[in-house]
Amino acid sequence: MRWEPDPDADPAGYTYTFGGVPAVAEIAPGTLLSTWTMDCFGGRVRAPTDLASQVCDPRMLNPQSGPFHVTGAKPGDTLAVHLVSITPREAWGVSSTVPFFGSLTATPTTAMLHSALTERTWIYEIDTREQVVRYLAADTPFTATLPLDPMHGTVGVAPALGEVRSSLAPGDWGGNMDTPEMRAGVTCYLGVNVEGAMVSLGDGHARQGEGETCGVAVECAMDTQLILDVLPGRATPWPRLESDDFWMTTGSARPLEDAFRIAHQQMVTWVAELTGQSIIDAYQFVSQTALTPIANVVDTNYTVVCKVAKAHLPRVVAMDGVHARLRTLAAVHTRQSGSR
Amino acid sequence: MRWEPDPDADPAGYTYTFGGVPAVAEIAPGTLLSTWTMDCFGGRVRAPTDLASQVCDPRMLNPQSGPFHVTGAKPGDTLAVHLVSITPREAWGVSSTVPFFGSLTATPTTAMLHSALTERTWIYEIDTREQVVRYLAADTPFTATLPLDPMHGTVGVAPALGEVRSSLAPGDWGGNMDTPEMRAGVTCYLGVNVEGAMVSLGDGHARQGEGETCGVAVECAMDTQLILDVLPGRATPWPRLESDDFWMTTGSARPLEDAFRIAHQQMVTWVAELTGQSIIDAYQFVSQTALTPIANVVDTNYTVVCKVAKAHLPRVVAMDGVHARLRTLAAVHTRQSGSR
Amino acid sequence: MRWEPDPDADPAGYTYTFGGVPAVAEIAPGTLLSTWTMDCFGGRVRAPTDLASQVCDPRMLNPQSGPFHVTGAKPGDTLAVHLVSITPREAWGVSSTVPFFGSLTATPTTAMLHSALTERTWIYEIDTREQVVRYLAADTPFTATLPLDPMHGTVGVAPALGEVRSSLAPGDWGGNMDTPEMRAGVTCYLGVNVEGAMVSLGDGHARQGEGETCGVAVECAMDTQLILDVLPGRATPWPRLESDDFWMTTGSARPLEDAFRIAHQQMVTWVAELTGQSIIDAYQFVSQTALTPIANVVDTNYTVVCKVAKAHLPRVVAMDGVHARLRTLAAVHTRQSGSR
Amino acid sequence: MRWEPDPDADPAGYTYTFGGVPAVAEIAPGTLLSTWTMDCFGGRVRAPTDLASQVCDPRMLNPQSGPFHVTGAKPGDTLAVHLVSITPREAWGVSSTVPFFGSLTATPTTAMLHSALTERTWIYEIDTREQVVRYLAADTPFTATLPLDPMHGTVGVAPALGEVRSSLAPGDWGGNMDTPEMRAGVTCYLGVNVEGAMVSLGDGHARQGEGETCGVAVECAMDTQLILDVLPGRATPWPRLESDDFWMTTGSARPLEDAFRIAHQQMVTWVAELTGQSIIDAYQFVSQTALTPIANVVDTNYTVVCKVAKAHLPRVVAMDGVHARLRTLAAVHTRQSGSR
Repeated sequence: MRWEPDPDADPAGYTYTFGGVPAVAEIAPGTLLSTWTMDCFGGRVRAPTDLASQVCDPRMLNPQSGPFHVTGAKPGDTLAVHLVSITPREAWGVSSTVPFFGSLTATPTTAMLHSALTERTWIYEIDTREQVVRYLAADTPFTATLPLDPMHGTVGVAPALGEVRSSLAPGDWGGNMDTPEMRAGVTCYLGVNVEGAMVSLGDGHARQGEGETCGVAVECAMDTQLILDVLPGRATPWPRLESDDFWMTTGSARPLEDAFRIAHQQMVTWVAELTGQSIIDAYQFVSQTALTPIANVVDTNYTVVCKVAKAHLPRVVAMDGVHARLRTLAAVHTRQSGSR
Repeated sequence: MRWEPDPDADPAGYTYTFGGVPAVAEIAPGTLLSTWTMDCFGGRVRAPTDLASQVCDPRMLNPQSGPFHVTGAKPGDTLAVHLVSITPREAWGVSSTVPFFGSLTATPTTAMLHSALTERTWIYEIDTREQVVRYLAADTPFTATLPLDPMHGTVGVAPALGEVRSSLAPGDWGGNMDTPEMRAGVTCYLGVNVEGAMVSLGDGHARQGEGETCGVAVECAMDTQLILDVLPGRATPWPRLESDDFWMTTGSARPLEDAFRIAHQQMVTWVAELTGQSIIDAYQFVSQTALTPIANVVDTNYTVVCKVAKAHLPRVVAMDGVHARLRTLAAVHTRQSGSR
Repeated sequence: MRWEPDPDADPAGYTYTFGGVPAVAEIAPGTLLSTWTMDCFGGRVRAPTDLASQVCDPRMLNPQSGPFHVTGAKPGDTLAVHLVSITPREAWGVSSTVPFFGSLTATPTTAMLHSALTERTWIYEIDTREQVVRYLAADTPFTATLPLDPMHGTVGVAPALGEVRSSLAPGDWGGNMDTPEMRAGVTCYLGVNVEGAMVSLGDGHARQGEGETCGVAVECAMDTQLILDVLPGRATPWPRLESDDFWMTTGSARPLEDAFRIAHQQMVTWVAELTGQSIIDAYQFVSQTALTPIANVVDTNYTVVCKVAKAHLPRVVAMDGVHARLRTLAAVHTRQSGSR
Repeated sequence: MRWEPDPDADPAGYTYTFGGVPAVAEIAPGTLLSTWTMDCFGGRVRAPTDLASQVCDPRMLNPQSGPFHVTGAKPGDTLAVHLVSITPREAWGVSSTVPFFGSLTATPTTAMLHSALTERTWIYEIDTREQVVRYLAADTPFTATLPLDPMHGTVGVAPALGEVRSSLAPGDWGGNMDTPEMRAGVTCYLGVNVEGAMVSLGDGHARQGEGETCGVAVECAMDTQLILDVLPGRATPWPRLESDDFWMTTGSARPLEDAFRIAHQQMVTWVAELTGQSIIDAYQFVSQTALTPIANVVDTNYTVVCKVAKAHLPRVVAMDGVHARLRTLAAVHTRQSGSR
């Protein structure tokens, strides 16, 4: 199944929130969904002379593709979002510094009396054949070639408590977590809060550093294929990810130590469940095995990821094996369509 | 040169602070120093029935080997500490939960009204031949075999402003940073605050997870070889590390986002200096290239590491090439001695 | 004008969010609105044997009276909410400890591995004649008589960016700020984000300590009179309050220092505007004159209030004098009606 | 007894730390100590043209009078510091903005990429007869007259664990708490960590706002009289204060919510002890009665004060009544000497 945003429509009609928006389509579990996502600026920042603060409406940032109503998903279930492929749609990406946004600047929340840092836009060349992006410094002739590593900054569902949250915010509904772990081949698990889950995604990044230091990754429109599945009656309090090699939990909160605490408490609980260990033993086990990359320190909540290698827990299967099943299904789908 | 702690001495005479203690020895730059370090409990927790809160004096935790007076080191210089080898000294290591210490518990600082979590001690088998540690859960028959990955939780110098800081604290003097990046083969750079730098090290870990979630790694006595060097007239505001593959900065502070900010601001400044880029360009470059593992969220300050791969900056040499020079020198030393 | 919630209606139909709910009534600026608000538990916790976690639905906490559509209020305006009178409706109030909620306990955000603290309910006697509340300890015969000091924990408007926020959250839309400064006689200024402002209020407290330490004040149903007014074309980025004696700004964020920074940056800006001082001079002036009580350290954002005494700035008039005007209007209204 | 700092001595010889310095004098409990303290800049900033960053050595800020060795004080005791009188010594005070210091600016810890805010010095007139200070704005003719409210930013003892801490830092040893509650008439309780307690004080403020927003109060040299007393065998984990009207606890930590948690957990414990209530009842009582002013959000730790009015707990006596006893003794002393 294919659903596409309309780049010629009135931008006011795009989806800028998780929750509060009617579904654009209904998707049955197991269907391959082909879509694409606009970049976080809605395509309005295209040259070094385009400054986000001048060409973008602050109420219309980070448009999402969706929300999709997933057949049968009910509050209390878990939605599995398997990312089959994520491919930059254009040969360019964009990054920038945005006034009073980022981790090394005063912001409206970390409020200070400083003037804004210099606003600037960088255009990257994206070379999908060489699988690299090319960076050009603005003030000197310095250049660098960096590996292409496409991912989605934003994947989420409608929040609990009837809340509607901006697509700029991450939280227990997923949203703008901005973790480079959200790559093709990964399955993201999200707790369902409303009928149909109402899942959407966007904010494609050709690559980003951990922490997304200046607040803006190598942003680009993205061609993406995904398969959704529902695990009925299984609650997932905070988003989790599974790759072929890692189990991952996330926490999104401020201060950053609370994001850490959430991710690690979730991992301790999960490891206890997966291995039959007591909570205190699982606490010990996670203490010696966790990898803990920071995802973002720039959004309205900060995000931390906790990873445990599957190699440390051979024979353990999580979430009823849905990741392996969707991997296989993705292979079948892509073989049939001949697409990547 | 060899210096050894005396395990039979009165523990009150060991070194438990950075600063405030006379040197145990003078070391000339370039000399290979062979030493060993006691575990963080001073060897007093040796069995599952030993509880740290019962067998340890809280004033005598984390004993350091040193301080060493480095010939010629002066305030304003940088001390390079090259870790030649780090090898567990015994066939066992120990971890534990300590009442009101750790990231998923109330503490004296994150003060609450909860009772302490269960106190427990785990003894690990350390197998240096197989290069693994073996974990046994306490409450169930669960076991796991994990890679050996020896490191020092603590490397530091005397602090500035005449301060004397507990070996439990990390900060701009180094100290208890608890990062698994402090492995053999790495060079740690520390700003010198007093004549002779007064460097010491300890807190060997057979391995640890990123964040040191429960507050205690696989603690063990460690045989360690290092070479010290001095970079005169070069200030290093916060500890940095260099491996063959990465440049790394650290920040130690609370809340955790301030540790992140320090590490990333330091990296932006360093990249600007190394590449000639402007600060705003370096901010952009770091935003797309940083890896950002959390080191600890349990000590009196929390530590974050920012890493940039040397592969992204070919031909760049940092700190006058001292890391490569000490790598070579270490190879000469170890070839001569035939030791690991 | 009078609007009343219907205590016999289906609780699912009450208002639990700021934004996302149609107006219950239209109010013209200057009208005296008489209403009452249910307590934060919707009246379901009435005896020491009633435990909130058993008798309340977590999706139906903190019901609001409203939202009211204020005639003529437009995005970019400021809404002035003048609290004419706030009187407990019943002779009792209730407080409690709620599992994993409060400042001295682990929470879902400050996630840990502790069991919950003891859940308990305290019923207070409210004596409006003596103007006191009476506290009875549960475990000992200790009792205390404390001054009655009625206030609203929650006053807010529909948020920006199309967000809908739970009535448990405070932020730049106001909401659950839980400051004891929200007393009768005070004017609260809120930036308008949507047509009609959509203001609502609730969460009456017979009194509370600063910080609302355990998360629950002396909660009670409240009879409240208020007058609304609109200041066209004047933006108010964060809620402000004005009493006869103080100008006050608020900040709601995590960590708590960010709430402090917001409130103080807002006060510096406001003082500069009111006195004609430069920003750096106003920074100096606020540094020597601010009173800074903490409001709450328990909600999804923490709230700090910054107060500057009018006595320090004689002859200064803020917000076009609307506070004094509404004070006078309130006196006229209440004289006419003969009510308190 | 009288002890005076020598303003003509080499500033390098003054006391800039808690701990690590030999006693300047021995004081017997109950003796009236008359001393004076230099301002935080050591008197080097005396005119609007004096900029702290130019005229001060950063290693020599906040000189303390002391340390005093208190006869008989032993680790595990509590030291009572009763402030008999605090009087500005000169007719002027000074405040300033210091580059990268303060709550509304990037700092070395909240590290960013901003340039420093404008550095500026304000000289205040101190009028002890009118009991006011007079402020002159620098950029406009604005002036203000503010109440004189003298206090000490710094009162502390030698820390635990053999640490030596800069006089710029607050913590469980007291130190640079910067609370305006440290007025004449107040008794400050500090846990003793070393023989003789080694108490010192300094950092006089003619007045300050709560939070000390820009980092610098109205700093001045101060004539101070105090009486010390020892409560043997009574531990005080964090500094407490007692005035005629309030019991107060303090917490100093980062993030600010941890300072809040410490102060409130200490107050809950103290109220339980003073009233015989259970901990959960005391938690409830403090939740409805605490006043919680912020002290500082600028030092290396942030400080929060929790206050409970004695009026709420009639007949309760704390700390064996030492405050009332020292109040009486102070009256006797000052009557004898005829001094204020």
